[in-house]
Amino acid sequence: MEEAWLRKRDKAYERFVEDLEIGYVDSDIRELIEYVFRSKRRLFTTSSCSGRITIVDSKYPWLREEAHVLFKRHQPITARDVEEVLARERPIYRLWLVVSGPILHFVTATIDDAEKLLTELRKAGFKHSGIISMGRGGTVVEAVTGIWVPFLLKEGDKVFVTDLAHLVSLANNILLEGKARLERLFKALKELDI
Amino acid sequence: MEEAWLRKRDKAYERFVEDLEIGYVDSDIRELIEYVFRSKRRLFTTSSCSGRITIVDSKYPWLREEAHVLFKRHQPITARDVEEVLARERPIYRLWLVVSGPILHFVTATIDDAEKLLTELRKAGFKHSGIISMGRGGTVVEAVTGIWVPFLLKEGDKVFVTDLAHLVSLANNILLEGKARLERLFKALKELDI
Repeated sequence: MEEAWLRKRDKAYERFVEDLEIGYVDSDIRELIEYVFRSKRRLFTTSSCSGRITIVDSKYPWLREEAHVLFKRHQPITARDVEEVLARERPIYRLWLVVSGPILHFVTATIDDAEKLLTELRKAGFKHSGIISMGRGGTVVEAVTGIWVPFLLKEGDKVFVTDLAHLVSLANNILLEGKARLERLFKALKELDI
Repeated sequence: MEEAWLRKRDKAYERFVEDLEIGYVDSDIRELIEYVFRSKRRLFTTSSCSGRITIVDSKYPWLREEAHVLFKRHQPITARDVEEVLARERPIYRLWLVVSGPILHFVTATIDDAEKLLTELRKAGFKHSGIISMGRGGTVVEAVTGIWVPFLLKEGDKVFVTDLAHLVSLANNILLEGKARLERLFKALKELDI
């Protein structure tokens, strides 16, 4: 294995331990990441999220840098959570409630390992996964499910929600669909021999 | 270059010409595909879409196989288009209006070519692109922008739209954002030396 890869793995582990101490690590994904660092010799994770619900102020829901995050939670939410944001915020652009499925970045030692991982990812329902970069520091695989649903909440003073309780229930179900895929991924990783 | 790759390229070209004759090729992307087949020796496209608006009946908007497509257009739509579907259809699951940005599958001769393509794709705003498979028949790169927005329209008899004219205008703007990225991609491909 390349020196550069091993150094990156060590750094990623240090970073993970630091994030744990600060409380940055999303609890639904902690066990999976620990498992990978403990049991996989040709694989590690960098940024990872178990899935979450956010409320953002942005022109379009896919924007990142130009978006203000007003609310973020990795667990199901309540109608009250949304009401509070709606009552408080007059959007600059638009308020979107965005439900995102899990997303993980894996770094494998070789391209061969990345191909094996991709096959398992597809089986576990991470259907939109792909290799996003390659180099001496390893091959980066982005694991994504396709579960990502924005709901337009508000524009100016105009509220676009007719039934908030229903929307919140739907958003929570979508979040849990994503968490279920993460469970499948955890099982698949245990079978993966790299 | 591998024999297998060249054979796949020829087959993809035959398929494209057939699709053109039948009228299957989405007109906004025709020129780009023709350019790639004519001018690029180490690259071809398979399935491609310039971006579209669909109305689907499905439990969740990301589903494919379990979804019924009730409406599909690669150009801006009118409120009347949506009203007609809403009046006609009582959904089995839910009706979603889904705006999708462009999506293209490129097959490159080597992994090196795929890396060069990925770099250009990112610059052209196809930020979620990645390598989805590799083999003797070439490396498949999925080019996607992240522009994908579903709107919940109806569930049972319950309509979730408060202002259809506004929703349609927003959907059309999102569609055009996607088409603009496709233009940027066309320019980037002209610069790409593979």
